[in-house]
Amino acid sequence: MPKSVLYDEAEVIHRVTNLFWEKGYHATSMQDIVDVSGLNRSSLYNSFGDKYRLFEVCLHNYQGEQTKITNKLINKGKSGKESLVSLFIGIKNDILTHPNKGCFLSNCLTEMGKNDGEVRNFLIDNKDGMISTFSKLIRTAQLDGEIDKDKNAEHLALFLFSNLHGLRLTGIIESDNTAIEAITEQVLQNL
Amino acid sequence: MPKSVLYDEAEVIHRVTNLFWEKGYHATSMQDIVDVSGLNRSSLYNSFGDKYRLFEVCLHNYQGEQTKITNKLINKGKSGKESLVSLFIGIKNDILTHPNKGCFLSNCLTEMGKNDGEVRNFLIDNKDGMISTFSKLIRTAQLDGEIDKDKNAEHLALFLFSNLHGLRLTGIIESDNTAIEAITEQVLQNL
Repeated sequence: MPKSVLYDEAEVIHRVTNLFWEKGYHATSMQDIVDVSGLNRSSLYNSFGDKYRLFEVCLHNYQGEQTKITNKLINKGKSGKESLVSLFIGIKNDILTHPNKGCFLSNCLTEMGKNDGEVRNFLIDNKDGMISTFSKLIRTAQLDGEIDKDKNAEHLALFLFSNLHGLRLTGIIESDNTAIEAITEQVLQNL
Repeated sequence: MPKSVLYDEAEVIHRVTNLFWEKGYHATSMQDIVDVSGLNRSSLYNSFGDKYRLFEVCLHNYQGEQTKITNKLINKGKSGKESLVSLFIGIKNDILTHPNKGCFLSNCLTEMGKNDGEVRNFLIDNKDGMISTFSKLIRTAQLDGEIDKDKNAEHLALFLFSNLHGLRLTGIIESDNTAIEAITEQVLQNL
């Protein structure tokens, strides 16, 4: 009978996600993963497969958590425009609270979005989902007279998506909180 | 007498830059560098030092080339606003011409901007230089009545810097040219 391994799966994924987030996929070794997870190599392989499969688990898990955060920010009886403002204020606050960290998906996009088919498809699906969410909120805001109806909702959603990544990247090297606040404010003036 | 090595240094740096740009720093091996440069390991070490030093040479060289391109776009008898528009149209055209490639500095920022002291300082200096260039152009445009004088030039410059990275990242996974055009247009409406 194989030795059973008892561990908190959610906690392992959380720790390994932070490791990939901090170091990137290629710079992270299996030994790094062993060290932060507290599991040995054979437990890791048995539970998650190789480093690449573990990375995919972390990516999907992170996306699920981000979706929960997004839904919390936009589903509290807020209007379309208030929801979009809440989202960007949430991102800004996250950058100010965790300076220099960037976004796991932005980091992943530059490292693996160009070459890795599976990760690339994941990131494209994620983008499409976010743009769809943004577009719906913009259209609701337009129907309610909060955003000018002449604006193209899809194009404005693309602009917001692009700015989300721009803010995350700028936050990595911009230590002045006022700068991050100013960029966020300028983005929101487009609504 | 040591064997002399004849090679085109600029061509080697160009090829290795494209390699780092494509794969990232950590995923690039010395063997990859040997393969694209056509030089053997000992010639590479003698001429450039180790992989890290070679990466730094590529970064500085790339920055120099980008500065030349920027100066060409803004120094042709254009007004402040025309210069900024030219810069963003140039970036947009580069994304459309080289889809999925991203920007070498954006990629580097997410991979090494958080942890690597030397690269981080380089990227911060580069950011400060770009924001200074943008701010000067915005102030000139404000003096000439092209941009509203009530806008904070420094803040608007930060917004443009953030959007430059946002566009580059979005360009990696957005295959619809209209989307990239729409984001660029929306950015420029802020001037």
